[in-house]
Amino acid sequence: MTVSQIAQSLKPLFDPESIAIIGASNDVMKFGGRPIRYMMEAGFKGRIFPVNPKGGEIQGLTAYEDVRLIPAPVDMAVVSVPAAGVVAQIEACAEAGVKGAVIFSSGFAETSEEGVAWQARLSEIARSAGIRLVGPNCMGMLNVKSHAIGTFSSMFDHGWPRPGNITILSQSGAVGSHTLVLARERGLGVRGWMTTGNECDVDVADCMLFAAEDPATRVIAIYMEGCRQPERLIEALEAARQREKPVVVLKVGASEVGAVAANSHTASLAGADAIFDSVYRQYGAHRVHSLEELLEISAAASAGQFPSGNRLGVATVSGGVGVMACDAAAANGLEVPALPERAQRELKELMPFAAVRNPVDTTAQMLNDIDLLRRNMEVLLEHGEIDATLLFMSSIGYSTHLMPQIKEVLPAVRERFPDALIYFSAMLRAEDKAFFEELKFNCIEDPTRAIEAIGALVRFGRSFARPAAPPPPALPKSARPAPARTLNEVEAGKLLRDAGLPVVESRLAGGADEAVEFATELGFPVVLKVVSAEIQHKSEVGGVRVGLADAVAVVRAHDEIVASVAAKAPGAPVDGIMVAPMVSGGVETILGVHADPVFGPTVMFGLGGIFVEVLRDVTFRVAPFGPDEAHRMIREVQGYPMLEGVRGQPPADIEALAEALSRLSVFAAANRDAVDGIDLNPFLVLEQGQGAVALDALVLAKTG
Amino acid sequence: MTVSQIAQSLKPLFDPESIAIIGASNDVMKFGGRPIRYMMEAGFKGRIFPVNPKGGEIQGLTAYEDVRLIPAPVDMAVVSVPAAGVVAQIEACAEAGVKGAVIFSSGFAETSEEGVAWQARLSEIARSAGIRLVGPNCMGMLNVKSHAIGTFSSMFDHGWPRPGNITILSQSGAVGSHTLVLARERGLGVRGWMTTGNECDVDVADCMLFAAEDPATRVIAIYMEGCRQPERLIEALEAARQREKPVVVLKVGASEVGAVAANSHTASLAGADAIFDSVYRQYGAHRVHSLEELLEISAAASAGQFPSGNRLGVATVSGGVGVMACDAAAANGLEVPALPERAQRELKELMPFAAVRNPVDTTAQMLNDIDLLRRNMEVLLEHGEIDATLLFMSSIGYSTHLMPQIKEVLPAVRERFPDALIYFSAMLRAEDKAFFEELKFNCIEDPTRAIEAIGALVRFGRSFARPAAPPPPALPKSARPAPARTLNEVEAGKLLRDAGLPVVESRLAGGADEAVEFATELGFPVVLKVVSAEIQHKSEVGGVRVGLADAVAVVRAHDEIVASVAAKAPGAPVDGIMVAPMVSGGVETILGVHADPVFGPTVMFGLGGIFVEVLRDVTFRVAPFGPDEAHRMIREVQGYPMLEGVRGQPPADIEALAEALSRLSVFAAANRDAVDGIDLNPFLVLEQGQGAVALDALVLAKTG
Repeated sequence: MTVSQIAQSLKPLFDPESIAIIGASNDVMKFGGRPIRYMMEAGFKGRIFPVNPKGGEIQGLTAYEDVRLIPAPVDMAVVSVPAAGVVAQIEACAEAGVKGAVIFSSGFAETSEEGVAWQARLSEIARSAGIRLVGPNCMGMLNVKSHAIGTFSSMFDHGWPRPGNITILSQSGAVGSHTLVLARERGLGVRGWMTTGNECDVDVADCMLFAAEDPATRVIAIYMEGCRQPERLIEALEAARQREKPVVVLKVGASEVGAVAANSHTASLAGADAIFDSVYRQYGAHRVHSLEELLEISAAASAGQFPSGNRLGVATVSGGVGVMACDAAAANGLEVPALPERAQRELKELMPFAAVRNPVDTTAQMLNDIDLLRRNMEVLLEHGEIDATLLFMSSIGYSTHLMPQIKEVLPAVRERFPDALIYFSAMLRAEDKAFFEELKFNCIEDPTRAIEAIGALVRFGRSFARPAAPPPPALPKSARPAPARTLNEVEAGKLLRDAGLPVVESRLAGGADEAVEFATELGFPVVLKVVSAEIQHKSEVGGVRVGLADAVAVVRAHDEIVASVAAKAPGAPVDGIMVAPMVSGGVETILGVHADPVFGPTVMFGLGGIFVEVLRDVTFRVAPFGPDEAHRMIREVQGYPMLEGVRGQPPADIEALAEALSRLSVFAAANRDAVDGIDLNPFLVLEQGQGAVALDALVLAKTG
Repeated sequence: MTVSQIAQSLKPLFDPESIAIIGASNDVMKFGGRPIRYMMEAGFKGRIFPVNPKGGEIQGLTAYEDVRLIPAPVDMAVVSVPAAGVVAQIEACAEAGVKGAVIFSSGFAETSEEGVAWQARLSEIARSAGIRLVGPNCMGMLNVKSHAIGTFSSMFDHGWPRPGNITILSQSGAVGSHTLVLARERGLGVRGWMTTGNECDVDVADCMLFAAEDPATRVIAIYMEGCRQPERLIEALEAARQREKPVVVLKVGASEVGAVAANSHTASLAGADAIFDSVYRQYGAHRVHSLEELLEISAAASAGQFPSGNRLGVATVSGGVGVMACDAAAANGLEVPALPERAQRELKELMPFAAVRNPVDTTAQMLNDIDLLRRNMEVLLEHGEIDATLLFMSSIGYSTHLMPQIKEVLPAVRERFPDALIYFSAMLRAEDKAFFEELKFNCIEDPTRAIEAIGALVRFGRSFARPAAPPPPALPKSARPAPARTLNEVEAGKLLRDAGLPVVESRLAGGADEAVEFATELGFPVVLKVVSAEIQHKSEVGGVRVGLADAVAVVRAHDEIVASVAAKAPGAPVDGIMVAPMVSGGVETILGVHADPVFGPTVMFGLGGIFVEVLRDVTFRVAPFGPDEAHRMIREVQGYPMLEGVRGQPPADIEALAEALSRLSVFAAANRDAVDGIDLNPFLVLEQGQGAVALDALVLAKTG
């Protein structure tokens, strides 16, 4: 299916116009009774068809004995019957041409073998009949605007969310409903809500893709624990990015103890958290670590303003908060530049006692003449050359004297600068907050949090501005598929060289004469190493000699290696003695590939030595990717300055490194079924213009 | 003055029983009118004496023409007259025996030369007459319990803070009043409030010391930008720690741009932020970076419970939030251990579908039988072997059905476990929140934030449990004071060796023969280096030779150095040629001392090479300190594992390193007036048991 077909297939679940409730009940406290009651109370304009074997009337509506008897097309069925009966109901739905179903029932893969089988059958029906299934064991869905309610949650007892443009997705029902209630309490505008439960068919990535394509969605807020369709996830993230829809994601399982808890909770759909993290980063999703942040950044993003630069202007009635704002700006990647001279001059004329450099500290003077606030803001917005503004006004909201004046002044500012991104940080009463929000002032009481939100918007803006990545480069013609067995160093080197990777050329010599022959071909000085699948630590058995400058040295080293290995590792099968030219210099790095349980082949990059061993300073990307992405990856490690050259060292050939990472990723992706891991260690990045070279190569087969 | 004398001297300012208002006004909108009006409205039980040259009555009270005419002792004068008149008023106060004064008036050091002089005179009066002065240019003070009001803030127009045990201190009036209003809105219990303004006498550190000694204060919440009395600050932090009073500090100026803003705002009382940070860490103060955190951690600490361990139990109605809690715990230094078998068994019996390992995921089952909540909590608290508990109950607070039941169940739990530290994370209505807080359940809606608070309490507990640091070791008898001139390497090495520091022994040779003589004494192989104050980069002029194995080599090297230096640095005055034994091996580190503008001599520690140069992985301590503190310092750097031994290296002599850092700190402190900086680079930490040695020593004089 294409992206738009997938999105289209989910529309009946997000925007159903006719809903069958299978397992409908007159008891409005029961799961099969609640959605009917809530929809009728909320005024759902579509059609509701209760389904119950007893027929008759349910909550005043005609009930049907079977979903197949409903005399009209059904967009969505809500299934609330015991687990054992679900498969039959879904078969009936498929037969009746129902487009999608939400299955509340638990008792599937999360509890028993029998449940696993039932769930597998559901997946099969979805695949073969094309009906889209949400759940089982989920809390269902909600359409805030149409009041379509496919959930048994009782959260509507105490209020209805404000309609808006945020689509909330959650793999967990409990977290999902909690998030929706939080959103309602904070007044966020919600477009739709979907919880995916056991994900027998529709998963969180499908829903993201729907939201990315959905014209009514502006922001996608997600709670996730793992992912069943990593490619769909990436596709959805990229679709959202291209449509400039911020994705805010609360992914749990970042810590080791969290990952253990997540596994016991979600039956191991968790890949390495670091890989998820790299995926979010690559596609510009904003990862948060608390519910509060999830709500706050989603709310900020829903205004749809994403500055193209990171220059922050600060206007404050407190110099101290100005300093605090500078600290927060630095922590969030924002600049607080000195204002242009003209702006400073005009501000000084307005407010002789003010600090005007930026932060602009108006001092309490402004409170005596509130029109200064208007003029201050106008100078800042007109001549400040800034991308976003923070206005801090302390507890002004409690001043019955000043608030009415501010409510005259700020609308005038907004009228003159309709598109300026302004955060208004002050203690405000609810009605005043609503007033300013109506005027597109973003109100966050705490100035530090306001700046965190601005930081996130700037990062979204940057990500949106990036063109779509070109397709990763193709493998060179010389590339061969990786064989289904583990290779020795010489074979591995050849395989990767053929795939376009710079691995030092090596030969496998069968005797001293051949070693000399190879050394002469490759050029002195050379290195000799024993090659044996059973000898891991070659140096310990005297299996390595370096810096061999001539034929005599090679012969002697060869014979010594053979003798030493025979003595110290008797019986180990020896493939031969590897001969390779000696290379040194450059910056030592490590390139690797490993197979992530979720994302498959994943490329790792780090600097050699203590950077990896002591500091664990590494970064990842899901394969394949192009050189541009490799450049971003390289710049993520702490040790990056080493490559730019420190202590008078020349800059290294970062271009060659990026090229190699990209090629490695393409090779790993093409061989995902055969290769379990690749190591290029050490991988020397030579001086700029001189390329890079791996001194050792290891390729592990999946079936080795 | 002793600690308790200082504290005693501030009592009239925090707890005044009789207050003179100098510049008193009938106009209740004026600064001299407000305090009187607010105190009368709030019911201050002490005596109020308006002072105004016109005499008569002010706001119904007898006004005095001069403070000296007041017929009773005055604890505190509030001074609200123009700057030019302040000195005379304070002189009058001193004469009248007024114990302290709060000076609102601005127009002092922050504005003009004249103001600087006036302010200096105020400092002088305070010193000579013993009257304690707060301000000028400050917003004053508040005593929440007695309703003593020495501030012109109008914040009382919209409410009064709840009395409690948190003392709020702020160098900024605007931030201070903002914080107090935030505290009031969040229902925090406040004991007192003081803003220090220009700090002509009483500074924020004095106030901290008062609060540390004050029986009514349980928590000290501070906003600060810098510090005028660093020793007092340290004294106050240690006094608070010893009395188990948490200090929560919002210090601004962490970023470079923030430091610039702070400087322009506060006339450069900012030392290096990293040094402040190390001081807070050393004395167990909790540094926060936003107002929200300042309030939240202060509120958490005000309950006075500081767990002795870091084991967290989590009970949740949402498995997803359980995972989130694990992530947050890991990020905040808390463990979420598997519960003991007995506890798991008992929980499983209670709730067959629950996850019982920890986090305990009760699932929604608990909501059907709320007594399960009681029994769950009882098992957790009785057999869980945990130090703190997080209970997450989502939007339970909106359930009119369940909330009454929970209000029966949780008090029973509290009764049985009166001292258990329990955080209750749920959406709660204000009255329910108050109900549970009354029962000593700490209510924080967001579970991640609740865990941040628990993490802070655990850190306080750890800090409080640490015994007072023993006095730093004395200098050895051989120690000599640093001379008031910059020393050459040989002299510097000798000076530091005499002070007990392991610096390689070196001699200054006047010719080749002497070089050989010294080399023979010191033992071959040796290193030779030219010594000249004008040659910074010795290698560049051929001024260094290493690995000289015998007399012949030394003579040749000596002559080559002399010739090369003469050719490449003609005219540079040469002290001689340094001879030192060649030492290698060990872990390369860097020890340094620099003079911080606020804290004076400060010791830096980092690992050599890329750790300092690329990663800026260094840590600091204010001198002097003992070996225990040095051990903590050493463990703060990222590269610490290098010292424990990586890649098969043996562990290094960390004991010797700690000893050296401590001795360096003692030497630096003893020579604070003479020494501007010290560098021991490289400082080799040898294998455990073999000590450590600096290969090079640099001592910079202040007047060099």
